[in-house]
Amino acid sequence: MPHITLNSAEPGIRGLLRYRPETGRPLSELAEVLLRGPGTLPRGERELIAAYVSALNDCRYCSASHSACAAAQLPGGMALVEQVRSDAGSAPVPAKLGTLLAIAAAVTHSGLSVTAELAAQARAAGATDLEIHDAVLIAAVFCMFNRYVDGLATTAPDDPALYAAGAQRLIKHGYLPPSSEPSRQD
Amino acid sequence: MPHITLNSAEPGIRGLLRYRPETGRPLSELAEVLLRGPGTLPRGERELIAAYVSALNDCRYCSASHSACAAAQLPGGMALVEQVRSDAGSAPVPAKLGTLLAIAAAVTHSGLSVTAELAAQARAAGATDLEIHDAVLIAAVFCMFNRYVDGLATTAPDDPALYAAGAQRLIKHGYLPPSSEPSRQD
Repeated sequence: MPHITLNSAEPGIRGLLRYRPETGRPLSELAEVLLRGPGTLPRGERELIAAYVSALNDCRYCSASHSACAAAQLPGGMALVEQVRSDAGSAPVPAKLGTLLAIAAAVTHSGLSVTAELAAQARAAGATDLEIHDAVLIAAVFCMFNRYVDGLATTAPDDPALYAAGAQRLIKHGYLPPSSEPSRQD
Repeated sequence: MPHITLNSAEPGIRGLLRYRPETGRPLSELAEVLLRGPGTLPRGERELIAAYVSALNDCRYCSASHSACAAAQLPGGMALVEQVRSDAGSAPVPAKLGTLLAIAAAVTHSGLSVTAELAAQARAAGATDLEIHDAVLIAAVFCMFNRYVDGLATTAPDDPALYAAGAQRLIKHGYLPPSSEPSRQD
């Protein structure tokens, strides 16, 4: 049961975005730009970084949700996502993506854990400055979302089919909220 | 030296917001709403939560910057900020703020560390649902900013006078960027 009384029964981040639209809007815009905006990292790879960080942070809602989004947009599907989540170092991902996942794992410990060596390995594998930037920021942003979702004890459905259906909605419509939503009554 | 080549010599988060304005805008809007927007928590107390979390995460730039903002807006000034940073449990803050700081400290470990008991203690001390929400989100947001700033190894000035001057600018003008800024050249 959530620690506070929300204004909907929506699970995870969705209930929080609806409860506080003043913060929900910039949070949604941030997710949209980082995970779906113009960029050289494929959307499936960005979602994989989000899913991996969320799994490392033990956030059940975010890891299920973004694993479904990654699986639907990566050739390796859910089998690859699960390999990354259980042992990223041995998962069959392209070398560049592997170095970005290593940076993301470091970010979950601390920004100070991202060493110059990790950045150099990413660059040697072909990552651009902007890709390194985005990998760090995606990981940092999910360290936030995971803490927000679990810090308020929001609910998370068990049924994987619900996350798969949610992923199809996100892939089609994106992370921005519909233009009009009911407001919180203070 | 930063892990990537930025397009300015600005330190800390400022250089990152300028490097990637597409993510910089929602990040700035989020800070503005949470730290300065309408709300029942005084701005100085919100900045104190940001400073405390940043200190727990060992983020030198963010802790110096938000400590200066908190000190300039709290009756206890920098002496109180330093007491909170060194031992929040014994610092002379109002009871409600003390419970919100305890929630923020839990968030730095994991969202799952925010127990129903911590939330109940905050409510017993007079915190509203929205105040508990905002304390969790401010703490989570600074777990992100700290990782972003240090994960890219941005620079942080040593001189406390620079942070004090920056705090005065933030208190006067807020966190939103000026309307036109030079763009990154990809």
